[in-house]
Amino acid sequence: MKKHNYSAGPCILPQSVLNMAAAAVLDFNNGGLSILEISHRSKDFVAVMENARQLALEHLQLNDKGYTALFLQGGASLQFLMTAYNLLDKKAAYLNTGTWSDKAIKEARRIGEVVEVASSKEANFNYIPKDYSIPSDADYFHCTSNNTIFGTQMKSFPEVAMPMICDMSSDIFSRQLDFSKFDMIYAGAQKNMGPAGTTLVVVKNEILGKIKRDIPAMLDYKVHIAKDSMFNTPSVYAVYVSMLTLEWLRDLGGIAAIEQQNNAKAELLYNEIDRNPLFEGFVAKPEDRSAMNATFNLTDDGMKDTFDSLWKEAGINGLNGHRSVGGYRASMYNALPLESVQVLVDVMKMTENKA
Amino acid sequence: MKKHNYSAGPCILPQSVLNMAAAAVLDFNNGGLSILEISHRSKDFVAVMENARQLALEHLQLNDKGYTALFLQGGASLQFLMTAYNLLDKKAAYLNTGTWSDKAIKEARRIGEVVEVASSKEANFNYIPKDYSIPSDADYFHCTSNNTIFGTQMKSFPEVAMPMICDMSSDIFSRQLDFSKFDMIYAGAQKNMGPAGTTLVVVKNEILGKIKRDIPAMLDYKVHIAKDSMFNTPSVYAVYVSMLTLEWLRDLGGIAAIEQQNNAKAELLYNEIDRNPLFEGFVAKPEDRSAMNATFNLTDDGMKDTFDSLWKEAGINGLNGHRSVGGYRASMYNALPLESVQVLVDVMKMTENKA
Repeated sequence: MKKHNYSAGPCILPQSVLNMAAAAVLDFNNGGLSILEISHRSKDFVAVMENARQLALEHLQLNDKGYTALFLQGGASLQFLMTAYNLLDKKAAYLNTGTWSDKAIKEARRIGEVVEVASSKEANFNYIPKDYSIPSDADYFHCTSNNTIFGTQMKSFPEVAMPMICDMSSDIFSRQLDFSKFDMIYAGAQKNMGPAGTTLVVVKNEILGKIKRDIPAMLDYKVHIAKDSMFNTPSVYAVYVSMLTLEWLRDLGGIAAIEQQNNAKAELLYNEIDRNPLFEGFVAKPEDRSAMNATFNLTDDGMKDTFDSLWKEAGINGLNGHRSVGGYRASMYNALPLESVQVLVDVMKMTENKA
Repeated sequence: MKKHNYSAGPCILPQSVLNMAAAAVLDFNNGGLSILEISHRSKDFVAVMENARQLALEHLQLNDKGYTALFLQGGASLQFLMTAYNLLDKKAAYLNTGTWSDKAIKEARRIGEVVEVASSKEANFNYIPKDYSIPSDADYFHCTSNNTIFGTQMKSFPEVAMPMICDMSSDIFSRQLDFSKFDMIYAGAQKNMGPAGTTLVVVKNEILGKIKRDIPAMLDYKVHIAKDSMFNTPSVYAVYVSMLTLEWLRDLGGIAAIEQQNNAKAELLYNEIDRNPLFEGFVAKPEDRSAMNATFNLTDDGMKDTFDSLWKEAGINGLNGHRSVGGYRASMYNALPLESVQVLVDVMKMTENKA
């Protein structure tokens, strides 16, 4: 039975990517060896790393604009620390839109002063704060573009005078933005880019090297840049599968094409949430709703067993909400087909009919 | 044609592991989903993580002895920093036996005072220093059990009064030792344990939490222990393939069984290096020779083209020495069969006959 994979991450990847990824575990590039057992310094893998880095920049239209793409380890969680280590001299400004913003702030506070310019914590992060001012003497402004747990997404970004850094872990490569407005973007691979185990960092070279702090080698972006993202052994397979996924995205028309699909999926589901009296969205303001993660609840808890049985019977996977929100969360990342959203919407209608 | 994979790491893995690893990319546990697209919080993956952690402790005979096993990201390179961050209060003692010891020392010096108790750097690390004294007030003693680049291996370890920490990246699970003499062991997976992308840390719980330094969450062993090695999204696939490899090792008889095979492989190759007048070992003292990585040179450079052609024709891969040593390096990790060593020895004899 076909599964409809709504997992919040690690999450659905394109079937064609999985087929190639499985084949490479047995024989990579017809070389008689597995991708898992070749040297990361081999010509074949160096080509993978360079291709993945180049594709990431091209998708973001940041090639030839003074940016470097790196595939590091440690997830966005390590980036919370690295951004502050490399860029926080006196004071940094953070927008708090959810659990991951909150964690980023906590780690940065170990390094220097952090000004939280706004927060929606008091409302369990069910909206994106919009009216706030950023201290003009901040070293950088940090935000989280999409909040997986709460289902909110920043639809616009402030105009700032200092470097803007964005954690795009859960919506990178999903929509068109002017990415050149950002001076650094980072994203764990395990949503729209590949499997868990590697993290994309895209950084504008000129913002680095401006503070005096001694930076440990593994936390220093300049060290990783100087070594072409191979200062130490990279997460070979995760980078390879990310490259395959970035090629898949290129072949179907890039971010512009996938954005149309993502908008169609989101519209289909949110229309049903709004129409169906049995469901209500978690996010307070429709304009803050994420196209990646739709969070919603039943209006009648008595229908929970019915709904849960129906979606499981339909082959849907990973629909339970995060414990800090409850209810349901439908994660509709790039590789999720519209057909899977239709299956969920049909189940919602069936549940309504049984109420 | 069958390849004989002498790659220094990432390196050869058992074929049965590769077969299962490839199958899981298409369908994991008959669940209709790839191992790459399931949640790391799913019951199926939590079982993988727990099994891998338990197997690591069992192989080292450290279960029920107050140790915790973690699968982290960032390689041994991040451990160089983490060990010092967590354990270095006033002064630490390091033995310098090669490039990786040297890097560990460099990172620790960012955190506190490091006493280099001995070094073989003056001889390009071609031996293991043995007569040295360790300051009794050192917070810990750090050593590197096997030096991949130079082909040396510590055959015995000092008796110390303080915690002993060992980077076993390139010989873990290859030989029997009294692992309870060590208070912390770490190892990048990509030699004897699995593919690149995860790092095993085995730490005695009681040595942690004794210093006052504020430790960033991602660098804090206690944070990772409290979250059962899932503080952040782990490198799912690398942990899974490591688990498969640890199961493979268990099924063939564990470390005791593989040690016999490793000794037989090393004896076969070193005997030929010593017998064949066309070759000479790089390591100065036979007792320091690594059973994992044999480094050697031609005594007659005029035979280089002949030897290189012959081993490539025989399907041998990854025999070139590291640039800091030159010559050749035969890495004979756990999964390399004796048959592959025989092929290399035959090529060495053929080269001699053509001289």
